[in-house]
Amino acid sequence: MRMLDLIAKKRDNHVLSKEEIEFIVKGYTDGRIPDYQMSAFLMAVYFNGMTDQESTDLALCMMDSGDTFDLTDIRGIKVDKHSTGGVGDKVTLVLGPLVAACGAKFAKMSGRGLGHTGGTLDKLEAIPGYNIVLEEQAFKDQVNRIGIAVIGQSKNITPADKKMYALRDVTATVPSIPLIASSIMSKKLASGADAICLDVKVGNGAFMTDIEEAKKLATLMVQIGKLAGRSVKAILTNMDEPLGFGVGNSIEVIEAIETLKGKGPKDLESVVLEIGAFLLEDAGIASKEEAKKLLIEKIENGEAFNKLVELVEAQGGDTSYIQNPDKFEKAKNIVPLKAKTSGYIESMTTIDIGIAAAYLGAGRETVDGIIDPAVGLVFEKKIGDYVSEGDVIAYIHANEKGLKEATRTLENAIVIGPKKNDVVLIEGVIL
Amino acid sequence: MRMLDLIAKKRDNHVLSKEEIEFIVKGYTDGRIPDYQMSAFLMAVYFNGMTDQESTDLALCMMDSGDTFDLTDIRGIKVDKHSTGGVGDKVTLVLGPLVAACGAKFAKMSGRGLGHTGGTLDKLEAIPGYNIVLEEQAFKDQVNRIGIAVIGQSKNITPADKKMYALRDVTATVPSIPLIASSIMSKKLASGADAICLDVKVGNGAFMTDIEEAKKLATLMVQIGKLAGRSVKAILTNMDEPLGFGVGNSIEVIEAIETLKGKGPKDLESVVLEIGAFLLEDAGIASKEEAKKLLIEKIENGEAFNKLVELVEAQGGDTSYIQNPDKFEKAKNIVPLKAKTSGYIESMTTIDIGIAAAYLGAGRETVDGIIDPAVGLVFEKKIGDYVSEGDVIAYIHANEKGLKEATRTLENAIVIGPKKNDVVLIEGVIL
Repeated sequence: MRMLDLIAKKRDNHVLSKEEIEFIVKGYTDGRIPDYQMSAFLMAVYFNGMTDQESTDLALCMMDSGDTFDLTDIRGIKVDKHSTGGVGDKVTLVLGPLVAACGAKFAKMSGRGLGHTGGTLDKLEAIPGYNIVLEEQAFKDQVNRIGIAVIGQSKNITPADKKMYALRDVTATVPSIPLIASSIMSKKLASGADAICLDVKVGNGAFMTDIEEAKKLATLMVQIGKLAGRSVKAILTNMDEPLGFGVGNSIEVIEAIETLKGKGPKDLESVVLEIGAFLLEDAGIASKEEAKKLLIEKIENGEAFNKLVELVEAQGGDTSYIQNPDKFEKAKNIVPLKAKTSGYIESMTTIDIGIAAAYLGAGRETVDGIIDPAVGLVFEKKIGDYVSEGDVIAYIHANEKGLKEATRTLENAIVIGPKKNDVVLIEGVIL
Repeated sequence: MRMLDLIAKKRDNHVLSKEEIEFIVKGYTDGRIPDYQMSAFLMAVYFNGMTDQESTDLALCMMDSGDTFDLTDIRGIKVDKHSTGGVGDKVTLVLGPLVAACGAKFAKMSGRGLGHTGGTLDKLEAIPGYNIVLEEQAFKDQVNRIGIAVIGQSKNITPADKKMYALRDVTATVPSIPLIASSIMSKKLASGADAICLDVKVGNGAFMTDIEEAKKLATLMVQIGKLAGRSVKAILTNMDEPLGFGVGNSIEVIEAIETLKGKGPKDLESVVLEIGAFLLEDAGIASKEEAKKLLIEKIENGEAFNKLVELVEAQGGDTSYIQNPDKFEKAKNIVPLKAKTSGYIESMTTIDIGIAAAYLGAGRETVDGIIDPAVGLVFEKKIGDYVSEGDVIAYIHANEKGLKEATRTLENAIVIGPKKNDVVLIEGVIL
């Protein structure tokens, strides 16, 4: 087999076999296939795409390039979720304890954020003492004991994907649905869950801005999951405004706590219930209709909140912060952003809201950047809300860094006008 | 400017500016742009193509990457021709002396062959003593004096094209019309002629096997020439059988001599007259109709043949071989290839005829391979000719090497059957 012939085959829109895809992934990972051949191949994939089977083979080969997690030691059905990324996305912090309270096993490896906001790990680390590093056995033991663990990835997961992604990043081959789908799914499949719900964000704050493209991505990821023998579902959720009201790290932990107590924002709760119902159904705990009722019950009876306390305690965090969120250290300056005119919030350039939070120190620009857990944004108004001139739209929580840039960016990101727009939160479901 | 953005621009089918193309070519040639970005870019060009203007800018930038020839010292209009390559193509050997005899200035830099047959330089070197190396001034002086010089390229011509071609060769990005056209034209423009006629070969012995693709290539090359301010025309000539009867090196020199004496094969003569008429017209020597008459006159009155003698003498060759071609050393074995059945020659797999000649030693496989000037093939029959069982189709001229492989390859390359096919020699003209 020669890489040159395989590039030509994809260029001419023929379908590659599993053996051929394996040859490419292994050869590239161990350096026998040079970057310049791989990038030509990736550009050919950009133009000609891949079949569902090719995408699945690619995901599985990338998975096999590194370590994988074997969670069979954990009793019961292991559930997982994945978000393609958005602003104010604290779904995992609410969903994990909630489904665990319902009896599902939530064994989650999470990532740090790069770009405009922190990742789930960064948010958890806003809780003093929370330890994201657990040995594999301790991780499994904890899930067996309390139904949940959320840790960082310590193993060498999907090195092929890491190498390919780095190359795609510098060769304009990132925006290819089959490549995105197999990259995400290689990691999800490696993490060993039985049932996975994918939260594909779509809108001006998401990687996918176009609903049709997002649908294609979600459909392909579900297909890859099925062909790989896992139970995978996807929902498409709106990201034309932040999810919930808070954007930051401790700010989002606080909002998650409120949501687990039944006092959170409606949009966040809806997304959590939707994904939660899928996961409980897949875990064989309840039918989808019953699942929703069960989830609400666990919020109302306090068990969901208690599960978060258990999780934090198990991983060494100071649970007094969870019991009393006022303990979280506040930023030095809490500055209102006021409406300069009256009207409805017509639109929000959500990506810029994320960037504003990053200016304040809520995100990192490089992998070793330091995150300030206290800073961020808390919105009072979102799309469709009416504001009079001078009303507070949001509070900017700032320390030393970036108040000016964040304020200017936010002002430009929010459009006030005569139209009362409505955001459709859940834009589709792919089963 | 960033290469990443330019890859994305071409990927998204936008048109690149001259400055952008310059950035790419310069950056790649001097190593600032890595191979892996260039190969992704080339694959994007494969899919989205380039406008005529982009192709011209690419050709000119590649030309500017190295040395160019300034032929203004040569009085009159300098004419040149280029063939995309075929089997038995000895057009230059006939055309050069012929148009020079008519008063045009034929200042030609030629190449060696790589692959199935020798190039013009290899054929000229079959003439004992012929020196293909001339200093630039001596080259120009000779053209001023006798109207013709045919030498090898000594300067560093189009290094950008060399580097890009080497990359295309290993990344499956060779078959792209804009890339082929700008590669050829960069070299042609660098060699400094005022008027150029391109002989685009099409058929089973040519790089282009499809007439529509060949037309596109020819049209784009003519367009690039015009946009670069040169007079360029193209003809499309058939390569479904060898041109003329001889394939080899001294074998082709002998056939060229016969053609300059008016006793050559009709197909070769037709191609020579067609290209010659274009060049004389462009040189302002005669209208196209008159030009053909003039060319024939120069063959009939012996001036064309005498010009070849002058050329060989000027470049140190032994003219007694031209005067008496029987002097060329013959191969040790001259073996007839006989028809195994009766019927018409229906088709010839011309590429395999070239390969058969290469088995005998008429071509080289690597750049430093050695060519045997005496070996090759002389056909007695071509497409449309009737043969009875046992008739000689061709004579195989062989020394020590490859007789068996050549015979087997030739037998498979020639199809005899009931259909009398006709080859249309000149398939189109692009002005």
